[in-house]
Parts: sequence; C-alpha cells; structure tokens
Amino acid sequence: MKTLQVIGIGAGNPDYITIQAIKALNSCDVVFLMDKGPSKDSLIDLRRELCERYITERPFRFVEAQNPERERGDVDYQASVQALNRDKQQVFERLINEELADGETGAFLTWGDPALYDSTLRILEQILASGAAQFDYQVIPGITSVQALAARHKVPLNRVGRSVEITTGRRLAAGQASDADSLVVMLDAEDSYRQLRNQDLDIYWGAYLGTADEILISGRLDEVAEQIQQVRRQARQTHGWIMDTYLLRKPQA
Amino acid sequence: MKTLQVIGIGAGNPDYITIQAIKALNSCDVVFLMDKGPSKDSLIDLRRELCERYITERPFRFVEAQNPERERGDVDYQASVQALNRDKQQVFERLINEELADGETGAFLTWGDPALYDSTLRILEQILASGAAQFDYQVIPGITSVQALAARHKVPLNRVGRSVEITTGRRLAAGQASDADSLVVMLDAEDSYRQLRNQDLDIYWGAYLGTADEILISGRLDEVAEQIQQVRRQARQTHGWIMDTYLLRKPQA
Repeated sequence: MKTLQVIGIGAGNPDYITIQAIKALNSCDVVFLMDKGPSKDSLIDLRRELCERYITERPFRFVEAQNPERERGDVDYQASVQALNRDKQQVFERLINEELADGETGAFLTWGDPALYDSTLRILEQILASGAAQFDYQVIPGITSVQALAARHKVPLNRVGRSVEITTGRRLAAGQASDADSLVVMLDAEDSYRQLRNQDLDIYWGAYLGTADEILISGRLDEVAEQIQQVRRQARQTHGWIMDTYLLRKPQA
Repeated sequence: MKTLQVIGIGAGNPDYITIQAIKALNSCDVVFLMDKGPSKDSLIDLRRELCERYITERPFRFVEAQNPERERGDVDYQASVQALNRDKQQVFERLINEELADGETGAFLTWGDPALYDSTLRILEQILASGAAQFDYQVIPGITSVQALAARHKVPLNRVGRSVEITTGRRLAAGQASDADSLVVMLDAEDSYRQLRNQDLDIYWGAYLGTADEILISGRLDEVAEQIQQVRRQARQTHGWIMDTYLLRKPQA
C-alpha cells in the first residue's frame, strides 16, 4: 500500500508549521512540489527550505510537477475549475502511480489548511473513487491566512456570540455578500471590497501575511479602500503576484 | 514594559502546536493557567505538559488563577457574557499587575486560536483602554477544532467556490441558521443540529478532537442525528464534560 500525507504548512510564516506537520514530513519518502510558474518560484523555494530544515530523521526526495493552470478571462468559472481539477487529477495520478513505490509515503504540501479553498482533498477522493490509484491518506491541518490576518491585526474574527462567514472575492463581486457580522474574504483578485463601501464597515486587510513582505492596513472601509487598492496594485507589480485576505466587520454595537 | 503572548496552542492534539507558539513560549517568564474547575482538570494538565515539554530554553514559572464562570440557566446571554468578561478582566489585571514584573513576558494559552470564540483579545484591549495595566502583546494563531474536525473527517470545509459560515449552537437553537452551503457549529450544548433535520444535509461531527478520546460520526443528518445525541450524552457523562464541533453541508449538486 502507498500512503499520502496532505500537509497544511501554514500561510506564509515558516514558523506556522505544526509539530504534527513536522512529524508527518518525517514519515515521507517523497515530497511532491507543484510548480505554479516562475512568478511563484519563491513559494516553491519556501517549501523546499521548510522540508530541508525539518525533515531530519530520514532521507527523502523531491519530485516536482507542473501544476495545471485554470483558464482565465471570459470563461465559465465552475467549468474552468472542473477542467482544472481534471488536469490536476491526471498529474496527481501520475505522481502517485509512477513516482511512489509500494510501501512508500508521499507528501502533498498545501499553503494554509488543506480544508479551506484547496482542491487536494477533492482530487484525492476522485482518484480513489475512479480506481485510478490506490492509497491511504492522512490530513494535517495548518494555520490559514485567515488566522494569520486576525493574529497580525490582533482582532477576534467573531463578535461576541456572533457568526463569521468565510467567502471569496468572486462571490462578493457577484453581489453574493452575506449579512454576517464578520465576513472574511479570500481569493479576491478584483478589489471587491470597494462594493461594500458606504455601509459603515471596518476592514482589516493583509497581504503576504506572515512573511517579511507583509503589509497590513485597517480602518473604516470608506476611509482606507482607496489606499488598499493603490498599495495592492503596486505590491502586485513589485512582486509579480499577490496573496491577500481581509476581514470586514460591522463596528461593535 | 511588560509583554504578553496570547498563544493558540491548538485544539486537543498536543502536536497541533506550531513552531511559532513554541518560540513564543520560550520567550516567557510566566505562564498563566486559568483554572476552569475540577471537571476541566485534564485540560490544565495538558497545558502544563505542553509547557514542560516545549519550554526548554529558560526557566519559567506557572501562575494559576481561578477562571470566573458565566452565570448559567435563565439569564440574559449577552449580559451574562458581559458580566463574565468584567470578572475575567479583573483577574487578568491582577495577574498582569501583580504576577509579572517590569521587563518580564507572560503567556496566556488558549485552546484552538485566540481569534475564534475566545475572549482573551477582547479583555486585553479593554484593559489597555481602561489604563488599568500597561503592556505590549503578540497574538499567535493555533489550530482550531474546526480544522481538526475537517482534517479528521478528511473533508474540505467549503464546497467549490462557495462560502463557509462558522456559528454557535446558541444561534442555531435560536433559529438563526444561515443558508450557507457549509455551516460549522461550535459551542452547541443543546444538540441544536436536530433542528435542521429533514433538510437533506450531511453532518460531520466530532468530539474531543485530536485527543485519545476522539469520537467521529458522519452521514446524512436525518440518519445519524439520534446516534450523535446518544453518543454525546454518554460521553459527557463519562468524561464530566464534552467539547464537540460539527459541519453541516448540503450534498454536492
């Protein structure tokens, strides 16, 4: 039998890694590194460094693979995600079948937590259901950018006794904002927070959370929305990519 | 100046602790342990063990304090929480002013993550605002029971491109369920999931997550609700307390 470890390595700060993740890494013969293109090279480097720093108990090897990209632009989002996941599934099948011997353990590393806006678990279940590969697998949770955001701003995610909704920029842009007291937005490529101006909201925004490039901005949304948009555009230009997250919250009654 | 570290130590499994939390612990002169009464003794023990295992770089001391309890029964919930937080604030003020010398660093440990359904950050901000004590503080995120739940059931929290709402049993019991595709419920003392039967939902339920006593049940809510209720009642009797969490989800379309 083959074993896979789906390991959340946390979002940004290498010190977000858990003891459980380190133990899981040390059970592995192979660490799969999914390459997301040159602009994300620094992310691959960070994963390499994590492994080299923490896998101390046994020899292991890296296996790199090209991560398929989602078709962008004027395409149906759900369909493009499905197509992407089919492509990813083929890559994962090949890695498991060809790069992992029987009795070996392989690791897939995910930023943040494998349970939140990550496709790895879904893809592994589809592979198992299709019968294209056989394996056991374990899931190791990791610190998400949502938690990094709250910690770095020193704010609770929820108001007393209230709920928190975690959603996507895409949903916000499509007008699917909930009226939750606390709304955390991930994966927003379109500055969708601007749509919620004039609603008396506070925003806690962060980019490159937990890294040396971290940027934090907070305040009344109406007062800082423009600043966030400018800082965001400039940072994306400088780095070639941006990962940011924010919390929108009604002020305490 | 005094420094406080508010450290999320994760939910249940001692291996959920992060390297960042371990480093923060090793910066501390004092670890404050809030005692929640005899039924929770095992929780205090676990925190002691964590500190003794991981604080290796310098001497430190434990300071225990009685954690005020919220008034239960037929009381106004918001008012009882406010009263509780006033009491906690006094305890925290005393600990910071009397048990921590100038230049020293003290740690408050929270289960899970300090940003999710925990009052420590709110209380520290109130103390700073009141001027009753002066200190700097840092917040260290930790693995929540929500993440432990998803990892142990090996399920994503969100459906593709959809949102997740994290809420309380109290809100569910009050009929304040959202129509989110994925609903995570914490702090449910009343088996409130029963109210959402006959809505074609899947449930992923877990108690004592990450510990040796962990119990996991999943399936169609209508089919397993009664089983969960029975297992829950019995486990609470056996242990004297229960901490459980669940994810309710509409089946994939």
